[in-house]
Amino acid sequence: MTAALVSGMLLVPQGLAYALLAGLPPHFGLYASLIPLIAYAAFGSSSAMSVGPAAVLSLMTVSALTPLATIGSPEYIGAAIVLTLLSGLFLFTMGLFKMGALSNMLSHPVISGFVSGAAALIIVGQLPALLGIEAEGDTASLKLFHVVERLPDAHLPTMAFGVATALLLIFSRLWLPMLLFRLGAPKQIARLAAKVTPMLLVLCAIALVHWLKLGDQLKIVGDIPAGLPKIVIPEWNGSLVYRLLLPALIIALLTFVESLSIAQALAARRGERLNADGELLGLGAANITSAFSGGLPVAGSFSRTAVNAEAGAVSPLAGVLAALLMIPVLLYLTGMFSELPLTVLAAIIIVAAASLFDYRGFIHNWRYDRTDGIAMLCTFLGVLLFGVEVGIALGIGLSFATLIWRSSRPHIAVVGRMPGTEHFRNVLRYDVETHSEILFLRIDESLFFSNISAVEDRLLSELKRHPDTRELVLILSSVSRIDGTALERMHQINKDLKNREIRLHLAEVKGPVLDRLSRSRLLEKLSGRIFLSSYIAELALLRADAPPAPDQEEPPV
Amino acid sequence: MTAALVSGMLLVPQGLAYALLAGLPPHFGLYASLIPLIAYAAFGSSSAMSVGPAAVLSLMTVSALTPLATIGSPEYIGAAIVLTLLSGLFLFTMGLFKMGALSNMLSHPVISGFVSGAAALIIVGQLPALLGIEAEGDTASLKLFHVVERLPDAHLPTMAFGVATALLLIFSRLWLPMLLFRLGAPKQIARLAAKVTPMLLVLCAIALVHWLKLGDQLKIVGDIPAGLPKIVIPEWNGSLVYRLLLPALIIALLTFVESLSIAQALAARRGERLNADGELLGLGAANITSAFSGGLPVAGSFSRTAVNAEAGAVSPLAGVLAALLMIPVLLYLTGMFSELPLTVLAAIIIVAAASLFDYRGFIHNWRYDRTDGIAMLCTFLGVLLFGVEVGIALGIGLSFATLIWRSSRPHIAVVGRMPGTEHFRNVLRYDVETHSEILFLRIDESLFFSNISAVEDRLLSELKRHPDTRELVLILSSVSRIDGTALERMHQINKDLKNREIRLHLAEVKGPVLDRLSRSRLLEKLSGRIFLSSYIAELALLRADAPPAPDQEEPPV
Repeated sequence: MTAALVSGMLLVPQGLAYALLAGLPPHFGLYASLIPLIAYAAFGSSSAMSVGPAAVLSLMTVSALTPLATIGSPEYIGAAIVLTLLSGLFLFTMGLFKMGALSNMLSHPVISGFVSGAAALIIVGQLPALLGIEAEGDTASLKLFHVVERLPDAHLPTMAFGVATALLLIFSRLWLPMLLFRLGAPKQIARLAAKVTPMLLVLCAIALVHWLKLGDQLKIVGDIPAGLPKIVIPEWNGSLVYRLLLPALIIALLTFVESLSIAQALAARRGERLNADGELLGLGAANITSAFSGGLPVAGSFSRTAVNAEAGAVSPLAGVLAALLMIPVLLYLTGMFSELPLTVLAAIIIVAAASLFDYRGFIHNWRYDRTDGIAMLCTFLGVLLFGVEVGIALGIGLSFATLIWRSSRPHIAVVGRMPGTEHFRNVLRYDVETHSEILFLRIDESLFFSNISAVEDRLLSELKRHPDTRELVLILSSVSRIDGTALERMHQINKDLKNREIRLHLAEVKGPVLDRLSRSRLLEKLSGRIFLSSYIAELALLRADAPPAPDQEEPPV
Repeated sequence: MTAALVSGMLLVPQGLAYALLAGLPPHFGLYASLIPLIAYAAFGSSSAMSVGPAAVLSLMTVSALTPLATIGSPEYIGAAIVLTLLSGLFLFTMGLFKMGALSNMLSHPVISGFVSGAAALIIVGQLPALLGIEAEGDTASLKLFHVVERLPDAHLPTMAFGVATALLLIFSRLWLPMLLFRLGAPKQIARLAAKVTPMLLVLCAIALVHWLKLGDQLKIVGDIPAGLPKIVIPEWNGSLVYRLLLPALIIALLTFVESLSIAQALAARRGERLNADGELLGLGAANITSAFSGGLPVAGSFSRTAVNAEAGAVSPLAGVLAALLMIPVLLYLTGMFSELPLTVLAAIIIVAAASLFDYRGFIHNWRYDRTDGIAMLCTFLGVLLFGVEVGIALGIGLSFATLIWRSSRPHIAVVGRMPGTEHFRNVLRYDVETHSEILFLRIDESLFFSNISAVEDRLLSELKRHPDTRELVLILSSVSRIDGTALERMHQINKDLKNREIRLHLAEVKGPVLDRLSRSRLLEKLSGRIFLSSYIAELALLRADAPPAPDQEEPPV
């Protein structure tokens, strides 16, 4: 019950703010916090997950829809409904067909770069509302420039309300729990108290506007129709659906990835096993119902889920209770929210977005793996400079290109036997035994069209460095596949080496590779033999001073 | 000298035919057989390679240029010059910067599917000229349909000349060498005789047209200006260059890949080492000079190179001599060629294209590796249905997608020790020793964002199948890289297993991976140890009945 109450207290300001961010009437955010939560509870698998409007999804909605309709127009609302419905259908279908693996296309650096970029876009986008100025601009930097330029025109009461809210929110996030704790409050209460600050600030702002009669000077939310959401049947046509397919797919993927990572963290902490496909069904159902009750996309929320878990939610019922709390709000309290200044919502959005910046992740990625860091940076800059869709496409493309680029430049090691063991290791790293006539090469990648040339070059240059080699043993312990192009080249290499009186042996060939090779003619043509292990190869090749003629050989293992 | 003569006899009909195919005046094909050959000899590295016009490149030229200009117009010829110049510059630059590795993007199945598709396009395109009918159509199938539909309108003398030439060419390819050999001619002479058939047929056709005065009834080549090629300075503008960049790049790549595979086969047979970057410079120089002397792209020719090699060419000089043979042809014999019927050239093109079909390669690929077969088929169909550029892009995309798809579904094996050895193998394939408390899993792929989920799922399901497991040893002999996303998940897996009182060990970690891991915190947090080999892991884990507390452990190796 506490969980539901606190969660509900978070839902109201976040709902209003994120609906505004998506270009929809603020009360749609409250609608999206009612039925979708119940739908998620019916299908979803996670016990304490709290779904609802999310900042990044709202940003993606507005960026997908602004080319199609004017913000606030009936066409815009209609398109939002179709967009949310499509992404809900994508999610639900992915769940039905157990396609949760699709989300593996997004690597952590790409997600984190994307979210950080989106956060920056959100912040810049909300600055004019926070400061009470007008500033337009096609790109984030241009908009930021205009904001700075027109800073002297800032509307003072608006700015005062906005900046004060933002500062109080930052304070409540960073220091309030610690302060309350020092003042003697129990740790859990102290933390939860900080979470209800946004709601308290909203109520204070409304009270101030009401008593000081500031309604004419500040931009306020305005009239909100009282009552429960009406079921809306989306009006759609083929071309609209077609143009929204790609954005809907991206929104669906992001919804899933974000929600899944929250649910995973939660499941791990509780020792539960996560059901990714059930999660997809739950998120799909939530978005489909959200479309019919207004059109704001919903996803798992990190902050509310954390609150839920902390306040002790153990079943999806907490979500349902939080949703039911929206009913009295919608029935009796909408009038109150009409006097809420927009600048307060802007402050809530900005502070929430700022917490999405992942600069630690960037430093970590940069240190551990430079290419991950670059992928993250490019996604971030792509989102900032070219928009959310281009940014994420850039990130996905880049991470796959890195994958391909790396497998095209395989690591190859000259190895020798560790004295006293049957184990072979890199001659550069370990003190190992080698023989001048036998060269052991370990290939650290599957062989295929884009790397076989590099492998061949390396092989020939190693033979040049070991001119006494008569027996070349390729250790295929890391080779999981050999494609047709590589196979043909292996034939050629085998033939060329035979002409140079060097025999080619294979060792540690894995089962699936051996199966495949036995369907080709390389095995018959091979000048050397196939050994189970490098050690057996070494023993056999050392024993045979004069190598036996091929017809006297033992059959390959 | 024989090599030069036979090669020259092949160059004349092929030059005329491929120039026509490219939509250029036929004598441009003779120009392209003069200076470019000398330029190649100056820079190229292969001893018997014969460069010159090629059917597939001519097809790509016409398909790149028809959207830009009308065939035969001065604009068309100008654009052809720019296209060939650009692809020559690409090749030369790739050679200067030693970027020969770029050609690795094309796998054998893609090349072979592309060439087969191009061959089909070429054949369908030449059928109207062969039969003396008019048939247009946007796609190959539509064109073929129109050809069949208008077959009754075929111009009989044209068809007679064309079909007779085609049949004689097929006969000379398939049976003539054998026939001459049976009649007592030496094997080499018999084979070379078959190669000069096209030239003899051309001369016979000219003679027939001349004596029977068929010049009015058949479409003939028409007047060819006598004299050596004049150096043409291409007229270019930015937008033309921009629109030709992509086609030029594709032509350059294909030129390189085709020529390189010919040169490689040759070098292997002669025991020479191929210099791929020298090859690029040679091909670049050949195409740049070809642009300045008419504009037909040139590449290594398989048939002429084979003739060259067979006739005993041992240095690039044979190419220069063959080129010099063009000089008398251009000075004194052009008048003769004016009476050559176009249908004879169409027959030469069709028979040459038919030999490019690689149905054996398709069967082979399909058998060895289904996905290679699919890539080949899709490239083939892509070229036929959507054109050469889309086809090859489809093929490249598909082969990389396959690569990604496969590495995303890694092979994982439960392994045990082969009795009497230190070697570990798959329990499903070999009779190996296992222990109920120790589970050895070998992961056959590098770990990264798109496969770590699959690895985790498999790991958990194997633990379910081996419920007594207390020690899980991951054998990383095939893991060449662990990216940031996978690393984070490894942390999580380690933590989850610790909660289940299962220790996680790593064995056979490669040097580069260990370096990378030691920069992260996984090594400190790991509940188990890192072992040099699986065997050492087994010994250590069996010795310790009660596993020592972490602080008593030996330092990781």
